[in-house]
Amino acid sequence: MKFTVSSELDYSSFEPCILILNIHATRNQQQIVDERFLCPGLEFTELSSFPDQNRLIKIKVNTPGQVHCSYKATVETSYTVIDCEGVAPVPVWDLEPGILNYLNPSRYCQSDKLYRFANHQFGRIENDFEKVFAITEWIHTNVEYLSGSTNAETSAYDTVTQQAGVCRDFAHLGIALCRALTIPARYCAAYAYQLYPQDFHACFEAFIAGSWIVFDATKLVALNSLVKIAVGRDAADAAVANLFGNIQGNSIIVDCQLADENFQAFYYLTGNSLGISYG
Amino acid sequence: MKFTVSSELDYSSFEPCILILNIHATRNQQQIVDERFLCPGLEFTELSSFPDQNRLIKIKVNTPGQVHCSYKATVETSYTVIDCEGVAPVPVWDLEPGILNYLNPSRYCQSDKLYRFANHQFGRIENDFEKVFAITEWIHTNVEYLSGSTNAETSAYDTVTQQAGVCRDFAHLGIALCRALTIPARYCAAYAYQLYPQDFHACFEAFIAGSWIVFDATKLVALNSLVKIAVGRDAADAAVANLFGNIQGNSIIVDCQLADENFQAFYYLTGNSLGISYG
Amino acid sequence: MKFTVSSELDYSSFEPCILILNIHATRNQQQIVDERFLCPGLEFTELSSFPDQNRLIKIKVNTPGQVHCSYKATVETSYTVIDCEGVAPVPVWDLEPGILNYLNPSRYCQSDKLYRFANHQFGRIENDFEKVFAITEWIHTNVEYLSGSTNAETSAYDTVTQQAGVCRDFAHLGIALCRALTIPARYCAAYAYQLYPQDFHACFEAFIAGSWIVFDATKLVALNSLVKIAVGRDAADAAVANLFGNIQGNSIIVDCQLADENFQAFYYLTGNSLGISYG
Amino acid sequence: MKFTVSSELDYSSFEPCILILNIHATRNQQQIVDERFLCPGLEFTELSSFPDQNRLIKIKVNTPGQVHCSYKATVETSYTVIDCEGVAPVPVWDLEPGILNYLNPSRYCQSDKLYRFANHQFGRIENDFEKVFAITEWIHTNVEYLSGSTNAETSAYDTVTQQAGVCRDFAHLGIALCRALTIPARYCAAYAYQLYPQDFHACFEAFIAGSWIVFDATKLVALNSLVKIAVGRDAADAAVANLFGNIQGNSIIVDCQLADENFQAFYYLTGNSLGISYG
Repeated sequence: MKFTVSSELDYSSFEPCILILNIHATRNQQQIVDERFLCPGLEFTELSSFPDQNRLIKIKVNTPGQVHCSYKATVETSYTVIDCEGVAPVPVWDLEPGILNYLNPSRYCQSDKLYRFANHQFGRIENDFEKVFAITEWIHTNVEYLSGSTNAETSAYDTVTQQAGVCRDFAHLGIALCRALTIPARYCAAYAYQLYPQDFHACFEAFIAGSWIVFDATKLVALNSLVKIAVGRDAADAAVANLFGNIQGNSIIVDCQLADENFQAFYYLTGNSLGISYG
Repeated sequence: MKFTVSSELDYSSFEPCILILNIHATRNQQQIVDERFLCPGLEFTELSSFPDQNRLIKIKVNTPGQVHCSYKATVETSYTVIDCEGVAPVPVWDLEPGILNYLNPSRYCQSDKLYRFANHQFGRIENDFEKVFAITEWIHTNVEYLSGSTNAETSAYDTVTQQAGVCRDFAHLGIALCRALTIPARYCAAYAYQLYPQDFHACFEAFIAGSWIVFDATKLVALNSLVKIAVGRDAADAAVANLFGNIQGNSIIVDCQLADENFQAFYYLTGNSLGISYG
Repeated sequence: MKFTVSSELDYSSFEPCILILNIHATRNQQQIVDERFLCPGLEFTELSSFPDQNRLIKIKVNTPGQVHCSYKATVETSYTVIDCEGVAPVPVWDLEPGILNYLNPSRYCQSDKLYRFANHQFGRIENDFEKVFAITEWIHTNVEYLSGSTNAETSAYDTVTQQAGVCRDFAHLGIALCRALTIPARYCAAYAYQLYPQDFHACFEAFIAGSWIVFDATKLVALNSLVKIAVGRDAADAAVANLFGNIQGNSIIVDCQLADENFQAFYYLTGNSLGISYG
Repeated sequence: MKFTVSSELDYSSFEPCILILNIHATRNQQQIVDERFLCPGLEFTELSSFPDQNRLIKIKVNTPGQVHCSYKATVETSYTVIDCEGVAPVPVWDLEPGILNYLNPSRYCQSDKLYRFANHQFGRIENDFEKVFAITEWIHTNVEYLSGSTNAETSAYDTVTQQAGVCRDFAHLGIALCRALTIPARYCAAYAYQLYPQDFHACFEAFIAGSWIVFDATKLVALNSLVKIAVGRDAADAAVANLFGNIQGNSIIVDCQLADENFQAFYYLTGNSLGISYG
């Protein structure tokens, strides 16, 4: 699947600052056909985040003023459809250290506080795919998608009770519930085709049947519509921008278009256990 | 410096379980002269955590019953005394990705919520060592060391206000305040010589002058008395034990003795900026 | 119904202190046949709390030492069984100011944060009695009664997610959910017959059909087994003891015996809407 | 002192609703020279809140649409200047039940969680007026007045750490700290002369020397510039509006003008202990 993605970010800085952006499409399991990043008049350099290998752009602002960054890329994505029916959960014993990590609670995903809730609500479902699918259905049904209802401090512990949020909050809650059920889970930031209104999107991946399977409790886009930007424990590891110094964001414009012939949307359905893994 | 450390952990399991212990002395910057881990009757294997390279022991409990684990080691530690006086803060621009990580908020260290507090209280101090030293002094003065006052869910955000806790809480608050001031900081679990009563200890490291400098707001032990076990973003990454299944802890016995001729305690003092780095 | 209740409380004071106890059976809607309060060697006086008219005993401790208080009473309780079937909710318009009060969020009952949850879970039930009964059933099913799992700071917002607690927590959650559904609700402290182990009990009352109907999500005792001590917005208004000064509790012994011929336990049942009001 | 106050509130209702407004100047210790409340086309009635005797206006909206309410009054306020120098704290023993109440933690003022902080920071100050004055100075210095930084769920526990807020948050923090120091304190909503931009104002009162002394950590207005609307445990008891049903606020316009000859602003000063009590 080929997509053209782009984003434009504007900032006003009031002193010398550093920006670290994470808006480049990842090279993990997808191919960057071409890309271009512009930040007129400013020094910048790319680095690879550790351990997640997200592509960060570090920008140095020496003099106060406007900062305008634009990114555009054509990306060839690929994914596998995995039939998780009847697949036994991966025992903790067999999880590699790099995966075990994603069982730990994190800033926005306090799985340690959700153990009883998760087990009461979802503990009886045996198959891991069905378990996580049930989690996304529960979130979709109970949490209202409401722009402006949350902020950068909102965490899964808030969302499970207050039941309103945006894609980031939906993802955090999904992750926290998975971890509380001993299913490794991680945050995933992406460009998303047919997302209205266009914006950066967030969803999550659960480690099932030996693969990272993508889930999206918002149901706002098809699961094969993603151009992945970053993964991490939660939004703290995959922020669009980290700002150091007195600088504020003005606007973000995001776009994602199909660059291929045709697109067949893939959604998860009750009754089968076909999941999508981007690798 | 040479120390003999040991720990014994007892559990009762009520079903087949997995335990992952993190009680082995790390091999980073210290030399294991000899060591021995016993867990009679149970299968276990060592693995290296990612990305922190802590030494985890994975234990498989197939039948319910008692689990008894014991670890003993002689460890040669080494550290450098670093004069941080007049040393300029490392600019964010120069931080490597593996260090940048430790600026992010984490489960128990919500630095994003402490920005104003940290800057009001410590923002005017220019030198990073003095800044972090002032943080530990503030914590030591304002937070009461009180066994049983906190639990596994207590975080820096609680401790800064409720002002009671144990070594783990002191460390979390130190870390959160450092990160809020754009100083990378990480959690450090250790055996500690002359800690009374003996137990696993926790302190933290701040990235100053290009090195990880150790700090301990509890002032319970000398800063060169540590045999390091683990580092991580916070206690979630460096838990003594992660338990999977119906199993509960009964008792922990910890010991740390000097195996060398003599020991000269090193504490930080107001007025100089000599810090200790274990590497 | 006649019960004999008693309680003994022991404290150690380390300086001159004031204690305010709330352990006397209330005179509202129940008759004190006889009672006796002893606090050897100390000055005390009774006062009536405002606005709830709970009976407080104020004790003055002039010299450090042991404080021993004992209360014993025979109380004739009375209650009405109210058939709430088909009874329309009392419109807010018709609520008196003294009742409106109990719609506000309070320290331990943050109804303002539970609005969506309460409405998703219980909003479709039309009859108020059935609504509150469904709340107690949900709490009983989802929240584990676990001594020691919570502390004096635990609130409904914690309990709804962490799903463990004691009678006080069960009551707070019930109250918060009622208020979120615009049903006035208040905390109720009581002696309770056939409570094992014997202790002070807590439940709650919801304002339905013009009366305060009692509910108890713990299901530990019959709803007609109560000798009421206090009502209030939450446990902050109906604490067993408020301590002013350096004084700590050592032990509490509580008892409640039947002083009548026979007792027929009254529990709420699915399918009818018979509620108990103590007045 | 004579002031003319007014407020206009606009709502859009989407179903039959009840509004309860608390915008009328209180009759406690101030004299309403004239007043007028309009709510064209809608049935409304006044009631007195319990136990605080705030003047509530209950409005019935039978058909969806716009709701426009306007209030205008001329009010003669009066206050006493009380010299609190050398005045001993009122012992708990002497507090009346109606005052004791205001020592309890409430929804937005979790004094129980601020005990150590309050005592560390302010415990050594002996005189109660100076103690509370020091609290307001601390809040004024450490908490940033920042419109939009908080919402209806923000409480003193958040504000003490996050250190940003509006008048309501400043008041809640002041109240919580007083109660943690065993000084009864209550919330106070008011019209305020020379407040820019004009809005409803919030401050708090502490019970010192037998009187309710008013304090305002925002320092936005003089302490004798207030036309009191309501008192209560916190904003939950003194909300401008409680809305029942699907109705949303559109705009609020507030004004407060001097109707007297001249006004001499009264602020508290370091070094004397002159407080203002409205009665």
